Amino acid sequence: MQNKYKTAILLLSCPDKVGIVSRISHFVFERSGNIINLEQYVNQDEKILFMRLEWALDKFTIEAEEISEAFKPLGKEFNANWEIKFTGVEKPRVAILVSKHLHCLLDLLWRCQLNEIECEIPLIISNHEDARPIVENHNIPFHYIPINKENKKEQEFKQIELLKKNKVDLIILARYMQILSDSFVNEFPYKIINIHHSFLPAFIGSNPYKQALERGVKIIGATAHYATVELDEGPIIRQDVVKISHNDELKELIRKGRDLERLVLAEAVRLHLQDRILVSGSKTIIFEN
Amino acid sequence: MQNKYKTAILLLSCPDKVGIVSRISHFVFERSGNIINLEQYVNQDEKILFMRLEWALDKFTIEAEEISEAFKPLGKEFNANWEIKFTGVEKPRVAILVSKHLHCLLDLLWRCQLNEIECEIPLIISNHEDARPIVENHNIPFHYIPINKENKKEQEFKQIELLKKNKVDLIILARYMQILSDSFVNEFPYKIINIHHSFLPAFIGSNPYKQALERGVKIIGATAHYATVELDEGPIIRQDVVKISHNDELKELIRKGRDLERLVLAEAVRLHLQDRILVSGSKTIIFEN
Amino acid sequence: MQNKYKTAILLLSCPDKVGIVSRISHFVFERSGNIINLEQYVNQDEKILFMRLEWALDKFTIEAEEISEAFKPLGKEFNANWEIKFTGVEKPRVAILVSKHLHCLLDLLWRCQLNEIECEIPLIISNHEDARPIVENHNIPFHYIPINKENKKEQEFKQIELLKKNKVDLIILARYMQILSDSFVNEFPYKIINIHHSFLPAFIGSNPYKQALERGVKIIGATAHYATVELDEGPIIRQDVVKISHNDELKELIRKGRDLERLVLAEAVRLHLQDRILVSGSKTIIFEN
Amino acid sequence: MQNKYKTAILLLSCPDKVGIVSRISHFVFERSGNIINLEQYVNQDEKILFMRLEWALDKFTIEAEEISEAFKPLGKEFNANWEIKFTGVEKPRVAILVSKHLHCLLDLLWRCQLNEIECEIPLIISNHEDARPIVENHNIPFHYIPINKENKKEQEFKQIELLKKNKVDLIILARYMQILSDSFVNEFPYKIINIHHSFLPAFIGSNPYKQALERGVKIIGATAHYATVELDEGPIIRQDVVKISHNDELKELIRKGRDLERLVLAEAVRLHLQDRILVSGSKTIIFEN
Repeated sequence: MQNKYKTAILLLSCPDKVGIVSRISHFVFERSGNIINLEQYVNQDEKILFMRLEWALDKFTIEAEEISEAFKPLGKEFNANWEIKFTGVEKPRVAILVSKHLHCLLDLLWRCQLNEIECEIPLIISNHEDARPIVENHNIPFHYIPINKENKKEQEFKQIELLKKNKVDLIILARYMQILSDSFVNEFPYKIINIHHSFLPAFIGSNPYKQALERGVKIIGATAHYATVELDEGPIIRQDVVKISHNDELKELIRKGRDLERLVLAEAVRLHLQDRILVSGSKTIIFEN
Repeated sequence: MQNKYKTAILLLSCPDKVGIVSRISHFVFERSGNIINLEQYVNQDEKILFMRLEWALDKFTIEAEEISEAFKPLGKEFNANWEIKFTGVEKPRVAILVSKHLHCLLDLLWRCQLNEIECEIPLIISNHEDARPIVENHNIPFHYIPINKENKKEQEFKQIELLKKNKVDLIILARYMQILSDSFVNEFPYKIINIHHSFLPAFIGSNPYKQALERGVKIIGATAHYATVELDEGPIIRQDVVKISHNDELKELIRKGRDLERLVLAEAVRLHLQDRILVSGSKTIIFEN
Repeated sequence: MQNKYKTAILLLSCPDKVGIVSRISHFVFERSGNIINLEQYVNQDEKILFMRLEWALDKFTIEAEEISEAFKPLGKEFNANWEIKFTGVEKPRVAILVSKHLHCLLDLLWRCQLNEIECEIPLIISNHEDARPIVENHNIPFHYIPINKENKKEQEFKQIELLKKNKVDLIILARYMQILSDSFVNEFPYKIINIHHSFLPAFIGSNPYKQALERGVKIIGATAHYATVELDEGPIIRQDVVKISHNDELKELIRKGRDLERLVLAEAVRLHLQDRILVSGSKTIIFEN
Repeated sequence: MQNKYKTAILLLSCPDKVGIVSRISHFVFERSGNIINLEQYVNQDEKILFMRLEWALDKFTIEAEEISEAFKPLGKEFNANWEIKFTGVEKPRVAILVSKHLHCLLDLLWRCQLNEIECEIPLIISNHEDARPIVENHNIPFHYIPINKENKKEQEFKQIELLKKNKVDLIILARYMQILSDSFVNEFPYKIINIHHSFLPAFIGSNPYKQALERGVKIIGATAHYATVELDEGPIIRQDVVKISHNDELKELIRKGRDLERLVLAEAVRLHLQDRILVSGSKTIIFEN
């Protein structure tokens, strides 16, 4: 059977017990699927197994559309949370929210052009006009939605409608300097990635580089995480740091930080779009290979 | 059945085909083994699958001694290279060869004491007397085997006999400043780990820090690799670097390098002793988790 | 004139104005001192100049003992805080306080042996007996001073007396698990270096690795800082981090952290003992070269 | 006196002797220049002093145009190589040569837009048409100069003429896949910066990522260096590495390498344009602060 999709990816978590890997890999094997990658991890404290299984569909004996139905009995038996994704046909759809700092936006656009990050970008939203020329230059619809205390609720509603209408799989806050309301966040659980310009949990909130300068730290960092209703408290996907010295004034921190932010955010987005992340409570399980 | 061992580890490589993961995990499952960790990697160019599978033996239905026999048909069917190791009873036996620089030796002894690296050290061999006090202080037999051009062959023979008599599983060249003969190396294939104080393949041979200084590089490195008959050409296990500046004279390079060498060698030894390394041609496959 | 000392080091901070570097380097020049190293830094916000000037004393025309007196007029004119240190005769005297985790202690002892860190260690104090064998093996006096809520005040008094009697220039808290009282800290301003096993200001207080695990961070860190009366709030000397993954359980964090702690603490101690650190408010100015 | 320039920068190297720092800082002081930064380094083997001295010109008592003449006697007395540069009026002029890989070009353009790197880019030259849209989009003249074995000499001549006519201060080889002839290189001594996609001296020449893959290294690197007549042998300005695993195929190495190349090249360019680099034989002295 010739599937239109290239591979299927099963993301699964369930209470650990004997035989799960064997039974699930057999499910793929008996339908002639060739396992390309299998990664699993057992949280020994909580006895929960997490698994990412990717297999080729070229000789698979059932249709992609039938796989979920076929897997249901196994999923039920193991009391699992699971979903199955497909690669090779539609690219995931990504929206970017941005304010006045455009380096992360530019970097993401550049990586999409190069196919380093494989996605469609049906829209970019900003509360400022600064990004418009760059965005329109890339032939991506730009939505200017200014926000102030008075109009925040209705403007967020407009944003949510736009994002839903465009069926986005992921929303990237690429240095978007507005705090999202709980209702916005709850519309897109674990589908919003934010970049915070510090090594969380240090320097939560605004002006983390200024906070870093005042504390006299010798490293600065950046953290990409899923947005949750608690500000800067969501599950962390990726972090990195760079060394600084007493010589580095605020503008140097900002300069060095820009490169960190770009790289950390881009890597988090890549991992998400390749379905390599499972969320478990306040943590992420990341299958990198 | 109560096995004396805690877990079994299968290391396997074979031509890739459909069903290997399923069949092998089923082998474990049908004998009531609980998979603790399964990692696999397919070299897509050469279509070779590499696998590391670790499972708990506490409820396994056959004796540890019978497992290899039981697995033989599967191994043969997949035309695999494989071996099965056990954890929980005997610690692997490690010999250390050292000359006058003792930092790597000290570091390894310290990690063994802390059980960071789990092993027995039945002997330490040196072509100099410098290490004797430290070694004897740790109650480890110290063998002084000086080597010069004339006696090299017979002295190496003595070393080999000692190493074999002590049934060592791994030989660590912890800054051992003698080039091993081919016949020595061939006695212990992929059982000798060397630390070279450069980021190979740069600065092969003697005085790599001096070479680095003369070239004016801005980083120095260290490389842990299996010793093969080609000097500094064996499969690389681990590498790391540290930044240097024009200010760093030779003694600074040596100082900074010592920490690098210690960490890189210790990590390579840990990976080897936990059976996390498969060798494929000139490369290593390392299952880190 | 033949001085017994090898070099003199001037550490100075003062309000910035035109001519300071010229005037001070002239002070050295007119007495035939050859400048080995001059580093200066101006905090542009506060208009404060910091300087470290090291010069050779072999042809210096006045005695080491007379230099401070000779420099006084210049120091006064520039309204400077300054001190002059000498190298080449007495090594600085260092005390180490330790509890049950001995890796930092071991590492420091090892570096002193190798002369990587040049100092005398006249005493080591612990609130536990664990370190005694190692310390006595190095022929260093070991003082067991157990501390509980009741005896804390008097035992600290005993510690302070010992430290003063031994004329220590630096006190290293090498994973010493007692909080020092304000009066202890105030006895030795900017002469106590602590290693905290997190990237401060994150995870202040106890069990930072456990805190890190619970927050789900992707890096862990270590911070060496001067102890001040606010816990974990003193001026930071050095920080570094290492990446971790979801796979790393608490014991892995502790294992990876040990290497970080050792390296970060050792480097901070080296910088302090080479008189490369100036403290300015909550920050350190570090002249690394 | 009000100078049109903001600061002057003296770059100097000469045989080390007593009093140089004092005399030169006095030269600035007696003309009412405020030293903003003074960095010096003495190569102890060769007894050569290197210095970078930057001072404010706002109250300097002589014109910028007269400074060189005024400094000549001192320069002669110390037998020094020296030059004086000025900041605050004209930006340095930079040409970029590029082929088909555009990530370094894009990154440089982006940093110039942000003023992270302060320069004018009067022209971009390529042996392919790929970069034209991007370049023209930035309103920079694009020169398509295809090169083959037959026309190489005359095309290089055309390039040299263009570069001279445009009075460029720096030529960046941003993944320019042509080997420059000796006569080209000699026209612009230490004014050509190349990015090589390996940690030199490893993997010189073409396809370093492929070479890295074949050797089985665990890190890949990038090196920015001045181009000299020996291929990939020029003085190194900056290097960095990133870890890779057995999992990373060629395309992953290329992807990871792109970020390295961009950052390493950009930092080297920034250091050069801020007059922070002195060349000494095969090495660079870099005054980073």
